[in-house]
Amino acid sequence: MHIEVVANIGEARSEEFLHKTVVVVDVLRATSTIITALSNGSRGIVPVETVVKAKELYREGDLLGGERFCKKIPGFDFGNSPLEYTREAVQDRRIILTTTNGTRGIQKALKASHVLAGALMNGRACADAAIQLGRDTVILCAGTQDVFSLEDGLCAGLIMHEIIQKLGAEHVQANDFGMAMHSAYLTCKHRLLDHLLSCSNGRKMKKSGFLADIILCAQANISESVPILENDHMVLLPR
Amino acid sequence: MHIEVVANIGEARSEEFLHKTVVVVDVLRATSTIITALSNGSRGIVPVETVVKAKELYREGDLLGGERFCKKIPGFDFGNSPLEYTREAVQDRRIILTTTNGTRGIQKALKASHVLAGALMNGRACADAAIQLGRDTVILCAGTQDVFSLEDGLCAGLIMHEIIQKLGAEHVQANDFGMAMHSAYLTCKHRLLDHLLSCSNGRKMKKSGFLADIILCAQANISESVPILENDHMVLLPR
Repeated sequence: MHIEVVANIGEARSEEFLHKTVVVVDVLRATSTIITALSNGSRGIVPVETVVKAKELYREGDLLGGERFCKKIPGFDFGNSPLEYTREAVQDRRIILTTTNGTRGIQKALKASHVLAGALMNGRACADAAIQLGRDTVILCAGTQDVFSLEDGLCAGLIMHEIIQKLGAEHVQANDFGMAMHSAYLTCKHRLLDHLLSCSNGRKMKKSGFLADIILCAQANISESVPILENDHMVLLPR
Repeated sequence: MHIEVVANIGEARSEEFLHKTVVVVDVLRATSTIITALSNGSRGIVPVETVVKAKELYREGDLLGGERFCKKIPGFDFGNSPLEYTREAVQDRRIILTTTNGTRGIQKALKASHVLAGALMNGRACADAAIQLGRDTVILCAGTQDVFSLEDGLCAGLIMHEIIQKLGAEHVQANDFGMAMHSAYLTCKHRLLDHLLSCSNGRKMKKSGFLADIILCAQANISESVPILENDHMVLLPR
């Protein structure tokens, strides 16, 4: 399998996603939130780029979720904290979600054969899914405003690590950036929370009172759920 | 000290270099070549972006060096292999040098207070120099045609590692990309040659017959020479 890791959405070239599986990664917090909401029984998440578009798609019974600059959007049901998306709140409900980077990443990946949502919490499950889907894989780190974010890079490294464990190093080729992220993950894997607390988004979010989110999002391989895009909805990939 | 590591020249924003020290890194091979040539007694290296400019600046007694796509430029004295720049060949001579990425990186850094040339071979010496110069530091990985190259990232990680060893982790702040490169270096430091042979430029150069160059350029901290830009010339920073 060939793996290409892309450092941020600004560097993504949609044409290069044709016939591939793209794993969109926004650890803090959009993809962690999507995984959590679907695990808790939401019947589908519609990722959209703008607040206007979110309100346009809203139908009775839906929930509106999202953030701008880490803050809940006025009039929305939820912000972008995975802890808000409890089973009580989201079971059997459709969620329209708009976030600054993560949902933009999903939109950017639409030309791919398959679009998955990856985070540290489902890294191994995502790797298994990518292998099963049988195509070359792009791991698209969402980053923050077109700048690389450490937590997304470490997650890309985790997914690479799990794919290499399964397929054997001799069956995996990666671009230079992917190799670097894999190596970075190997150094950081036993102290992921420390690294998430010291990176740029982690410091910002801790200041804004989201320490519990960081602690949840830093846990590797705690979820078997793999969100996949079907038409306009992210749903769980059947196991 | 604040350290910002930039992934490739395309991402460099010159205005952000004001009042800072910029270490330009092009391990394979421009900065390794500049270090070697100055160590071997060249009296100065003029990095220029184009072949036309190189020929324009040429004066009797000068040497012309450079490459396009790993190959020597027709009519030039040398290509871009550090092994060509022997003491016999370069002592007391001025060299006009143009390469695809490295010299472009130096040109891009001109607004900085100080511009150094870094490579694996002088990583520790470069870190010492950056500390001595006393300013916030940008490590500009040249990359290849505006794409990240692993060898430059690992060198950035080495320089960060040496700075952290000297100043203590609590006195060094880095951007997320720098943190990732530091972690990647820690995984790779005992097998730098293997990593240089498996990265994109290493594979290409080995195919083109430059294995000896890769072996030389993969050796960390074998040189005390730190090239610094003075007016238009790279010369050795006095120790």
